[in-house]
Amino acid sequence: MTGVKVYGLPISTCTSTVMICLHEKQIHFQLLHVDLFNGEHKQPPFLAINPFGQIPALEDCDLTLFESRAITSYIANKHKETGPDLLLQHQTPREEAIVKQWMKVESHHYNPAISRIIHEFFTAHLRGHKPNQHLIDQNLEHLGTVLDVYEKRLGATKYLAGPRYTLADLHHLPCTFYFMKTPWASMINDRPNVKAWWDNISSRPAFLKVIEGMDNFDFGGDNKKK
Amino acid sequence: MTGVKVYGLPISTCTSTVMICLHEKQIHFQLLHVDLFNGEHKQPPFLAINPFGQIPALEDCDLTLFESRAITSYIANKHKETGPDLLLQHQTPREEAIVKQWMKVESHHYNPAISRIIHEFFTAHLRGHKPNQHLIDQNLEHLGTVLDVYEKRLGATKYLAGPRYTLADLHHLPCTFYFMKTPWASMINDRPNVKAWWDNISSRPAFLKVIEGMDNFDFGGDNKKK
Repeated sequence: MTGVKVYGLPISTCTSTVMICLHEKQIHFQLLHVDLFNGEHKQPPFLAINPFGQIPALEDCDLTLFESRAITSYIANKHKETGPDLLLQHQTPREEAIVKQWMKVESHHYNPAISRIIHEFFTAHLRGHKPNQHLIDQNLEHLGTVLDVYEKRLGATKYLAGPRYTLADLHHLPCTFYFMKTPWASMINDRPNVKAWWDNISSRPAFLKVIEGMDNFDFGGDNKKK
Repeated sequence: MTGVKVYGLPISTCTSTVMICLHEKQIHFQLLHVDLFNGEHKQPPFLAINPFGQIPALEDCDLTLFESRAITSYIANKHKETGPDLLLQHQTPREEAIVKQWMKVESHHYNPAISRIIHEFFTAHLRGHKPNQHLIDQNLEHLGTVLDVYEKRLGATKYLAGPRYTLADLHHLPCTFYFMKTPWASMINDRPNVKAWWDNISSRPAFLKVIEGMDNFDFGGDNKKK
């Protein structure tokens, strides 16, 4: 895979997800920053790549793709022989189905709750108001029910989809990384199986490579300068 | 595939999605009704199948799966040689990636808007109030922007992911079917490419087989009797 380009920002959770996946597969890529703060993502050149005007997008030779989870699936599928088999495609349709089931759980249950919490907690002041604690509390409650399911599941299997690390785990990394900087990190730390899983997946070299870009984001600063 | 069981309700859009997919693949299945109105989905027997307590779920021999879009992907993958190649797995990773991209568009853009509209329009009175028009209007606006993208896309390709019918199209059927019974059906009918696509996909025999169960739902009636 030569000439791979990722359009996005290293602080963006969805961009980071794609970058982690590329690092897992040891694929060299170029990150092209999209200036969200000046509305570059809503201008015709970027809209030609993603008509919904959202980052990230991937360019691989003459293919352009958007939607981070479609991008990671493409990378995992195209490079199934390199690095970890992130969709368990070398197993039966049953194993692959279980990966996809837990990918949907992340997408439909975990992410809506956790992303609203971190968005509200870290960016409310940029919109000139205090974080809406009611909104945060609602989502913390939902996140708690999801984590209870995870705690039970991760008591039975090392990773969400079974004994192997897959996209179902990988997709949790960026949002959970930010969440661990909020006052509610105990929701992870107080659930032993979830905590062990988090410590494990968050120490993978492919993730450590993208943390620096995520950590550089000063949530209290002037984003336009970034 | 023998002994396939679907847990759900024919009026449920997510259950219907799974049923349409099984019909496309000409797979015989048994539909086991889950009594949502008496909370059967929140009781231990069903929670053992889906810990999130939501329909539908699939049972195929010793495999149980939840999350409708993971179920349809599993069916399409396991039965890729039967009926239409709903994930374009006989093509290159590029074609399969484009299917998945448009599946994510349905899941992350189209569905959140349209499902809120139909839920609010058809079920508000069951909760003892009038439909929240502000909520409907907000989602109609978002749906309009998504349909503008579809109109352009479907001017270039017959189906969302290219020249072939795939899960990216199939997943739109149940929600759009209900939406066409609302006062805002013109949003589909007034966009010529979207209208032609809708007329095409909604006339497929596999979909016609599930319509009866969806149509039998009397939104104004007492659901407990259903």
